Amino acid sequence: MSLAVEHDELVSFRRDLHRHPEPAWCEFYTTARIVEELEKRDVDEIHYGPEILGSERMNVPDDDELGEWFERAKAAGAREEILAELEGGYTGAVAVVRRGEGPVVGLRVDIDALPIQEADADHAPADAAEPFRSENEGWMHACGHDAHATFGLGAIDEVLDSDFEGTLKVFFQPGEEQIVGGEPMANSELIADVEYLIAAHVGLDHPTGEVVAGVDGFLAVSHFRAEFSGEPAHAGGHPEEGKNSVQAMAAAIQNLYAIPRHHDGATRVNAGLVGGGTATNIIPEESFIEGEVRGETTDLMEFMDGKAETVLRSAADMHEVEVETERLGRAPSATSDQELVDVVADVADGVSGVESVPVRDELGGSEDATFLMQAVQNNGGYATYVGIGTDHPGGHHTSTFDVDEESLDIGVEVLSKAVLEAAKRRP
Amino acid sequence: MSLAVEHDELVSFRRDLHRHPEPAWCEFYTTARIVEELEKRDVDEIHYGPEILGSERMNVPDDDELGEWFERAKAAGAREEILAELEGGYTGAVAVVRRGEGPVVGLRVDIDALPIQEADADHAPADAAEPFRSENEGWMHACGHDAHATFGLGAIDEVLDSDFEGTLKVFFQPGEEQIVGGEPMANSELIADVEYLIAAHVGLDHPTGEVVAGVDGFLAVSHFRAEFSGEPAHAGGHPEEGKNSVQAMAAAIQNLYAIPRHHDGATRVNAGLVGGGTATNIIPEESFIEGEVRGETTDLMEFMDGKAETVLRSAADMHEVEVETERLGRAPSATSDQELVDVVADVADGVSGVESVPVRDELGGSEDATFLMQAVQNNGGYATYVGIGTDHPGGHHTSTFDVDEESLDIGVEVLSKAVLEAAKRRP
Amino acid sequence: MSLAVEHDELVSFRRDLHRHPEPAWCEFYTTARIVEELEKRDVDEIHYGPEILGSERMNVPDDDELGEWFERAKAAGAREEILAELEGGYTGAVAVVRRGEGPVVGLRVDIDALPIQEADADHAPADAAEPFRSENEGWMHACGHDAHATFGLGAIDEVLDSDFEGTLKVFFQPGEEQIVGGEPMANSELIADVEYLIAAHVGLDHPTGEVVAGVDGFLAVSHFRAEFSGEPAHAGGHPEEGKNSVQAMAAAIQNLYAIPRHHDGATRVNAGLVGGGTATNIIPEESFIEGEVRGETTDLMEFMDGKAETVLRSAADMHEVEVETERLGRAPSATSDQELVDVVADVADGVSGVESVPVRDELGGSEDATFLMQAVQNNGGYATYVGIGTDHPGGHHTSTFDVDEESLDIGVEVLSKAVLEAAKRRP
Amino acid sequence: MSLAVEHDELVSFRRDLHRHPEPAWCEFYTTARIVEELEKRDVDEIHYGPEILGSERMNVPDDDELGEWFERAKAAGAREEILAELEGGYTGAVAVVRRGEGPVVGLRVDIDALPIQEADADHAPADAAEPFRSENEGWMHACGHDAHATFGLGAIDEVLDSDFEGTLKVFFQPGEEQIVGGEPMANSELIADVEYLIAAHVGLDHPTGEVVAGVDGFLAVSHFRAEFSGEPAHAGGHPEEGKNSVQAMAAAIQNLYAIPRHHDGATRVNAGLVGGGTATNIIPEESFIEGEVRGETTDLMEFMDGKAETVLRSAADMHEVEVETERLGRAPSATSDQELVDVVADVADGVSGVESVPVRDELGGSEDATFLMQAVQNNGGYATYVGIGTDHPGGHHTSTFDVDEESLDIGVEVLSKAVLEAAKRRP
Repeated sequence: MSLAVEHDELVSFRRDLHRHPEPAWCEFYTTARIVEELEKRDVDEIHYGPEILGSERMNVPDDDELGEWFERAKAAGAREEILAELEGGYTGAVAVVRRGEGPVVGLRVDIDALPIQEADADHAPADAAEPFRSENEGWMHACGHDAHATFGLGAIDEVLDSDFEGTLKVFFQPGEEQIVGGEPMANSELIADVEYLIAAHVGLDHPTGEVVAGVDGFLAVSHFRAEFSGEPAHAGGHPEEGKNSVQAMAAAIQNLYAIPRHHDGATRVNAGLVGGGTATNIIPEESFIEGEVRGETTDLMEFMDGKAETVLRSAADMHEVEVETERLGRAPSATSDQELVDVVADVADGVSGVESVPVRDELGGSEDATFLMQAVQNNGGYATYVGIGTDHPGGHHTSTFDVDEESLDIGVEVLSKAVLEAAKRRP
Repeated sequence: MSLAVEHDELVSFRRDLHRHPEPAWCEFYTTARIVEELEKRDVDEIHYGPEILGSERMNVPDDDELGEWFERAKAAGAREEILAELEGGYTGAVAVVRRGEGPVVGLRVDIDALPIQEADADHAPADAAEPFRSENEGWMHACGHDAHATFGLGAIDEVLDSDFEGTLKVFFQPGEEQIVGGEPMANSELIADVEYLIAAHVGLDHPTGEVVAGVDGFLAVSHFRAEFSGEPAHAGGHPEEGKNSVQAMAAAIQNLYAIPRHHDGATRVNAGLVGGGTATNIIPEESFIEGEVRGETTDLMEFMDGKAETVLRSAADMHEVEVETERLGRAPSATSDQELVDVVADVADGVSGVESVPVRDELGGSEDATFLMQAVQNNGGYATYVGIGTDHPGGHHTSTFDVDEESLDIGVEVLSKAVLEAAKRRP
Repeated sequence: MSLAVEHDELVSFRRDLHRHPEPAWCEFYTTARIVEELEKRDVDEIHYGPEILGSERMNVPDDDELGEWFERAKAAGAREEILAELEGGYTGAVAVVRRGEGPVVGLRVDIDALPIQEADADHAPADAAEPFRSENEGWMHACGHDAHATFGLGAIDEVLDSDFEGTLKVFFQPGEEQIVGGEPMANSELIADVEYLIAAHVGLDHPTGEVVAGVDGFLAVSHFRAEFSGEPAHAGGHPEEGKNSVQAMAAAIQNLYAIPRHHDGATRVNAGLVGGGTATNIIPEESFIEGEVRGETTDLMEFMDGKAETVLRSAADMHEVEVETERLGRAPSATSDQELVDVVADVADGVSGVESVPVRDELGGSEDATFLMQAVQNNGGYATYVGIGTDHPGGHHTSTFDVDEESLDIGVEVLSKAVLEAAKRRP
Repeated sequence: MSLAVEHDELVSFRRDLHRHPEPAWCEFYTTARIVEELEKRDVDEIHYGPEILGSERMNVPDDDELGEWFERAKAAGAREEILAELEGGYTGAVAVVRRGEGPVVGLRVDIDALPIQEADADHAPADAAEPFRSENEGWMHACGHDAHATFGLGAIDEVLDSDFEGTLKVFFQPGEEQIVGGEPMANSELIADVEYLIAAHVGLDHPTGEVVAGVDGFLAVSHFRAEFSGEPAHAGGHPEEGKNSVQAMAAAIQNLYAIPRHHDGATRVNAGLVGGGTATNIIPEESFIEGEVRGETTDLMEFMDGKAETVLRSAADMHEVEVETERLGRAPSATSDQELVDVVADVADGVSGVESVPVRDELGGSEDATFLMQAVQNNGGYATYVGIGTDHPGGHHTSTFDVDEESLDIGVEVLSKAVLEAAKRRP
């Protein structure tokens, strides 16, 4: 089988997105471009705007920041009537193709980018004849989500061109990097009837030509922000009048890392971004910790989360300051189902360019595709997380990360064939 | 004036007490011996037993320990019918001499000893022809309270031998080293009518022949014991099941020392005795901190006390353990009144053997005579804390501390003359 | 097969040891009794005294404590000429049976007891017609090592009664509870030629009739004692003159628990027994931490050990105190070899009273049998750690732990048959 | 005496400076305006540029920041040939008036401003008919240094108009708020021959009409910045690969506040501005603490400084990160000399508008005028720090602080008369 979609078209779309990397809940340009492309195709439904999110969003930027990205998308040429639906940060889209009586198969791809300054030399996007380096200063598609969105679009083309019987739903998910998009999308009605779900990711240290049929080892994770608020005082004159939020912060940090280990498996904790105070001679009034806890299972993550909450609250009490803790994002753990892993492994073997199909691998990080996987599994369906190898010069989340564009075709073919095959397998 | 009381008698009494040092609330032998001596004299009232304490005692030893000291006193020859009144640790005594219409003058001396192993060589009590080293292993009169009791008895002899007009009350106070005796004695009715109060202490780094008319600079102090109680668990198998009292203790220690400094003056904090746990492989269930806070004023001590309470409670919460905090003893700050300081300075000048009378000095430590001083001052009376210099080879609270017995006569004369003079000064 | 050894004899020997529980390096009575029994049998070599230890012992009690246990053993009737060889705490024994050309098979049993007060009611050793409760106040065979020694002796009887061809070495190891005996015994020449090693343990939450052929999941462990030494000072008068060892201890505790988690597997840390200081009003001069670190692998344990060392040293530096860290005991991780697990599983199936043979189980704790297992495995041999189920009313390391004596016969039969079978399996 | 200088002129100059508040080492406009005014007067020497600083400057802003303020000063109309001498942040000026043989009298005023957003309503500078609110967004003369510079200039006018015999040196000192200007100016040759030094400050919670002849109670202070540098790692994947600078920072904060109190007097410590890390899921590579220590004496400050250094270094070692500690600024303690306090008290009594002259007051904060006071005192001269009361609606260092301009005249008269009188008093 050769692909219905042209390689050049895949490359062109991926590069367009690569030039316009956007953060969580600000994927205005990206969403608008996806919707524009979907409108050109024989797709039965295109969902976007608030309707695709079934629960509250966490960690939404403030209006100023949303507004800035909105205007930037407009300036970059995104269609205004589409943008209008996204206002307030309701980004992401879901495409539905209905073809007869077969099962409902879902494909999940994510579309957001990272706060990384892209390399400007010795780096394909900068060195190409027609450069396609990020035009959004300080932001970069450094994890390949531009390729993921391309997989989603390409897979639709292939399915449209096939004898597929069933329903295909492609979830273009916002906000994965901050693990904020998965949860509300998993709570939408759109996921409720999905029987097979395939989530996809490029790279993961696998070279072009390798396809991992089932990735596991997702750590459940919860991101939080704690804000301590005390009372300032002159550090020389009246230190006793201060309620010292930096002391509270320090006590919390020390004791967060000291949460006990757990018999049931791996846990993690990190106070990744902290700060407080204003000047050497003022007892610090304000401080904060942005941190995370993880667990090998969702229960372990929740154990850590509960302990962290206790530490933060007690550290505040200890120094007579207030603390507000906000959850910034989270994701459960998940496991790929053997039934669907087998499907992917079977089809991948026959795809042009695929040289090796390791059946299983461990991620060792976190991902909020797990929310969608869990939703499907809880309804009795099957899910898998597929790795599409790509030669990437720099590591994920570095300024020289890049996708080998040969892997775009491989991904599109593996994923679309897996969709077709899954649709035939309903027990 | 030569003394009515013989030098040898003072020495003999002091040495008897020196051989039998006893801790707070266990001064059975000491009290009984004082009462026996008082009974030989023309004293109007001798008070001892529960009636001399006006409020609850803190930090009373358990029955076993009380019983042990009780039996030891009996074995050492203390009179049983006196001992019977002291049962349960109601130690201390108050002697009252009533001679006509004059004012009520109080003299306060303390009688307890320290948990120090007395030197057994190069040390007068050990080297004397008739040695009088401590017979209570591990305990020692290392702060001169044996001399203080002797001052009290000798001063009564002098006053009885004089034309004194007024009432003399001598307070033989128990439990000063643990600052537990002053508070209940200050709450007794016996102090209520005292118009002038003189408290006395030997040494304080002043040589024989020096008398300090007014000591100040008492730090208010509060001793506490915090007991943390969690849940044990196997440290290898199930660390998450433990509620770790040693982590709570450590968090508390770190944050106790970090209580803010205060604009209004000096503060102190110390976690002087701590411990916890049972074995390397058990998450520790129990731990404790015995500590203290001090302040240049009583308010400052209370500021520290409140903060310490908050730290202890929050540290417990942080590690999900319980904490019980008990106050072990305390004392306020105090200042010597110039009116009475003048009296002492005046009489001391004429006393045989006195070469120098510094009017004021700073103690820089704590003392619960301050409770009695404060009680008198609150009633409109005057108080002073007098230092009777003595050459002491080792420092206070060391195993080679000793009193130059020449200073016994000086103390008796200074204090009795001050009593007589104070009685004449009522405005 | 019925056993050569009588059930009553096993019971009698076990109860004798049960009455005389002894700590690490003080197993004088226990060792002497084992040697006496061995001398009655047709055993080729009996090794005891310093010769059975190939490297330095850790955590040996001081001479007073050794002397006390030595005298107690003598008083209990242990033979003096045997005791003489054990002086200085050289406890434990190795029995060798040589029967022809076959392979060398080792059996390892441990013999020490725990500092636990044995229950005195509702507890078989107390309630038996002839009670056999601990006669050593405060110590107890609360982990079944009395049964282990009995297994060793019984297995020798069975092998002597069989057609065994090869060499049997039974290692009666001292000091397992403090993980101090395994390392020096594993460094002795006696282990060097062992080709198969079977270590055994009763109970482990398996009932009588269950035999686990291969126990795994030993956490590598290291016990340490850190002593901090600073300078005392009066907490009220001159706090700045102190070098506060309790502050150092607290900083160390907080940061020990906060050593980072590790990608490669489970780690543990515990400050299980801590203390410091002398009195509320003295800046504490001395403090200590007895603690442990563990790891799923020996590398992970060593990672923790290195980090702990850094924390302890830096905490001391921070408060300008000295720290001495001593290793109290340790053990590596280990895995049972399938070759030998199969042997045990095969023979156990046929043993009278055995109803179930789970092939593998996880310990989740630590054991220094691992030193001997590792020594054999490093020489190309095979090792397994066998669990002999026993109904035990109270848990291991509790005052009501007891061994169902029916399991003595099962253990003797399983272990002796495994020895015979292993000897036949040499590849 | 009425003043030679017009009230309106004082007001006009003060308001000009008020509109242009500038930070330490960036007082380009302020310095240029002072020099311009001095050039109009019969002043013997005007020193500015590098020559007025006798030692290295601390905490100089980087070139970008210096350049920005330089350009802003130029745009505001400062004379370019003066500015050229100040390039690189060599701000401040010294004016010398030589009139015959009398002693050398110094007057020290400071000229820098604070990073505070000035109130824009209910605040005289905003509400005046001709508003003179800060034109430098985010900066404000919120401590009255605009008045101080005006005092300096006005006093020169008065002295020039008098029969003064001696030398007057007016030190317009930069960088007091960050305590960076005093030290290098005190090390300049210009201070070496000063025999009497008067430093002045408005307000300090004294109303218009009150003049404090001698302010004391300066806490010696040292500001520092510690930068911790570790190694980042993925917090989920490989936490053990990180060297966690935020853990180091937290351990340092906790232990900084826990530096022991001191017998000799008050001490202070504050971690006033802290931060670290980049993202929740990255083990933090970088962190910092900007803090300060203070002491009632310079020795006490140095005691704290040494302890802080030890804490910072050990906290870094504990978490295997590097730390660089930089001193940002400092000031010793100082005491006003009675000889000069008397002079000020004497002259103030006769000044129009002065209603009360408290002889002494305690500052309870820090000031680097102490460097100049100390320099003079070390040379055998006398120094005092004078408070010129002013009604100030908001407190010092708040957005509504303002100077009652009536106090400008009082300050000029008190200070100039004190200069004249001091010149007559040479012993």
